[in-house]
Amino acid sequence: MATVLIGLGSNLGNRKQNISLALKEIGLIRGTAIRKVSGFYATSPLGGPKGQPDFLNAAAVLSYSGTPAGLLKALKVIEKKLGRKKTVRWGPRIIDIDILLSENKIVHSRQLTVPHKLMHKRLFVLKPLAEIAPDAMHPVLKTSVKDMLKNIMPEIFKNVRDVKKFVHKARAAGKSVALVPTMGALHEGHLSLIRQAKKENDIAIVSVFVNPLQFGPKEDFKKYPRDTQRDVELCANAGADAVFAPVPKEIYANDFQTIVSQKRLPEHLCGLSRPGHFTGVMTVCCKLFNIVEPDTAYFGRKDFQQTVVIKKMVEDLNMNLKIKVLPTVREKDGLAMSSRNAYLSVQERRDALCLYAALTKAKQMLKSGERSSAKIIAEMKKIITKTPSAEIDYITVVAPETLENTDVIRGRTVAAMAVRIGKIRLIDNCILKS
Amino acid sequence: MATVLIGLGSNLGNRKQNISLALKEIGLIRGTAIRKVSGFYATSPLGGPKGQPDFLNAAAVLSYSGTPAGLLKALKVIEKKLGRKKTVRWGPRIIDIDILLSENKIVHSRQLTVPHKLMHKRLFVLKPLAEIAPDAMHPVLKTSVKDMLKNIMPEIFKNVRDVKKFVHKARAAGKSVALVPTMGALHEGHLSLIRQAKKENDIAIVSVFVNPLQFGPKEDFKKYPRDTQRDVELCANAGADAVFAPVPKEIYANDFQTIVSQKRLPEHLCGLSRPGHFTGVMTVCCKLFNIVEPDTAYFGRKDFQQTVVIKKMVEDLNMNLKIKVLPTVREKDGLAMSSRNAYLSVQERRDALCLYAALTKAKQMLKSGERSSAKIIAEMKKIITKTPSAEIDYITVVAPETLENTDVIRGRTVAAMAVRIGKIRLIDNCILKS
Repeated sequence: MATVLIGLGSNLGNRKQNISLALKEIGLIRGTAIRKVSGFYATSPLGGPKGQPDFLNAAAVLSYSGTPAGLLKALKVIEKKLGRKKTVRWGPRIIDIDILLSENKIVHSRQLTVPHKLMHKRLFVLKPLAEIAPDAMHPVLKTSVKDMLKNIMPEIFKNVRDVKKFVHKARAAGKSVALVPTMGALHEGHLSLIRQAKKENDIAIVSVFVNPLQFGPKEDFKKYPRDTQRDVELCANAGADAVFAPVPKEIYANDFQTIVSQKRLPEHLCGLSRPGHFTGVMTVCCKLFNIVEPDTAYFGRKDFQQTVVIKKMVEDLNMNLKIKVLPTVREKDGLAMSSRNAYLSVQERRDALCLYAALTKAKQMLKSGERSSAKIIAEMKKIITKTPSAEIDYITVVAPETLENTDVIRGRTVAAMAVRIGKIRLIDNCILKS
Repeated sequence: MATVLIGLGSNLGNRKQNISLALKEIGLIRGTAIRKVSGFYATSPLGGPKGQPDFLNAAAVLSYSGTPAGLLKALKVIEKKLGRKKTVRWGPRIIDIDILLSENKIVHSRQLTVPHKLMHKRLFVLKPLAEIAPDAMHPVLKTSVKDMLKNIMPEIFKNVRDVKKFVHKARAAGKSVALVPTMGALHEGHLSLIRQAKKENDIAIVSVFVNPLQFGPKEDFKKYPRDTQRDVELCANAGADAVFAPVPKEIYANDFQTIVSQKRLPEHLCGLSRPGHFTGVMTVCCKLFNIVEPDTAYFGRKDFQQTVVIKKMVEDLNMNLKIKVLPTVREKDGLAMSSRNAYLSVQERRDALCLYAALTKAKQMLKSGERSSAKIIAEMKKIITKTPSAEIDYITVVAPETLENTDVIRGRTVAAMAVRIGKIRLIDNCILKS
């Protein structure tokens, strides 16, 4: 009898029921006995098509008298019986059952790899597993489940001194360092930045700080979503090495008074309805850049003006890092991912699609030969205006370096917009390249 | 017959005549023939009592049939004959004659060291010498005069990329780097910073940049003294390794627009009559700190508010360097050294002493037990007011961190003042510690 560890996941239908049913079926496999079952653990899907629901994961310890290959065959039968269909890689599934570990057996076949080759990199595998088999050893890595869990969790720093110490150690070892500045409430947009940061650098650090300086007095600073625990877990799955999550007074001491501002770029687009916003953004980024001293910092193109402002700040003040801007990540239906989407009601969520519809229209018109910004903007406005809950803040076509309006689209321009859906202000943009 | 190189210097009386007379006398020494004489070379005195006049230096090549000790004896007689008196070390002198090099002879006696132990470190020695004996070899350093001159001259960088490359090379070699930011027109105040910077660091870089951003529209940006050649020579003598002297467009490109400002500190003292001045100072220092990435930057306490503002900027924006503030260097009569002193007429130069007199009065009152800022300020004002060409901008006693006025002197406070002498605005300050 071998002790086998398995992982179960579901993100379609009644997820708890799917996992429970699967376990019941597993218990009926000949030569099998279920010894322990973990609690359920919810997690955001990792990669795959956008907009799929969260996963529910669990793990179990089995006794099994046969071979891993034999067990795999039986598990595939169960998956099929529960209704799993072949879809795209990483796609949504009713049930997913993986053999993780089978004592010190090592299997490498076309169908099966034991230990599971990603088990040590996945928080949603290790977290439930550590509940029921913390001391199980990975025969290749020679690491226990609880140590694998420890290794995958990013280091969490609450103060400047500690994160600096961490960075200096990494630097002394010749490692490259990336920073992904965030305000938490992480979504797939952030995770794509973290994954890319980790891919291109030895060390990826995510800062999580809801920066009071960039919120106006009537804005949503207080109700901005905060869930550091969830953010840290998402960072773990995305490969982050460290999370810098300072308390506000660590960033802004009582006598704090030095700010970084810009003369022209903030006088366009969002800067007009959010006075002081970009001063707040620049000031906190300047601080974060000095604290972490990254080789590269990663930003999403969704906050287009922010990326232009930050790149200009780095250039103007001779800061010693590169800024990388990655594409906007969208929900399946086109809505740009944003932490503020969580505020939308069901109806508003539907209405919010008008932003993407307007951008799509702009692209279509450009493709059909239209070069007049005014005509494109007029059509975009029509789409927004016919959405009852939508109120336009601005819709414009601008030059991507100066953010000044362009009458005629020539070369690379950007269609950018801010629209209120109910009380929620959403922004989106796309590149229009003639 | 040995070929002997000698150096001559004078900074008292008719300097040219003193040197010419000395040379005539040297030609009369038995067994001596003067082969070549360099041109005259003027230089600021290095160290020694403040306020002494510039030196005039020259060098000569002699043929001499005796020993270096014999020659030294003859030279001392000539110095005495010309009227040289024993004064303090580095003090002013009618004539100074040194044996620099005597082919490959090496002498170490109590009276004489040949080659002269500082010859390779002194621009005012090497510059005239290189005119007449560029290929003479230093027998210990195995370096020619022209190479010694090359070595002592700081590297001069005109653009950001080159100075960065220089710094990165130094860093890669594990060297510490100091920055002394200046606007050129160097005086003993700057030189004391450079010497200290070099003493405490492997590499000392001096930036010379008249920063347009810190001048008001009616201030003296255009007429501010500029003499890079002189500045570079002074930097050489003070031990600087590099001078960063960018052209304005290298620092402020056409579309430059990012600035660093502060909310409260500039609302005191000089900030009140020079709006935007400290924003300009902070912005350029932020840029220079990012360009040079020094371990330490050095500032003089004469610009007291500037040092407080810069230290606060570094703290607030988490910049990765130390700021060192060194004491104000004064002329012999107490006037704080300043590039703007050069604008003063003879009468104004005399009147300008009222600043130091007022500060001295403040210190005396404190020593006598006075703790009221108002009473001290009143006495200081009296001294300034009775000087006809003087007009007070401000005289105040402030807390050294916040720059807020203090009514009662308790602990460390600073008496600070700005006074116009004619058209020239001078500042000065002193620490009042109860």
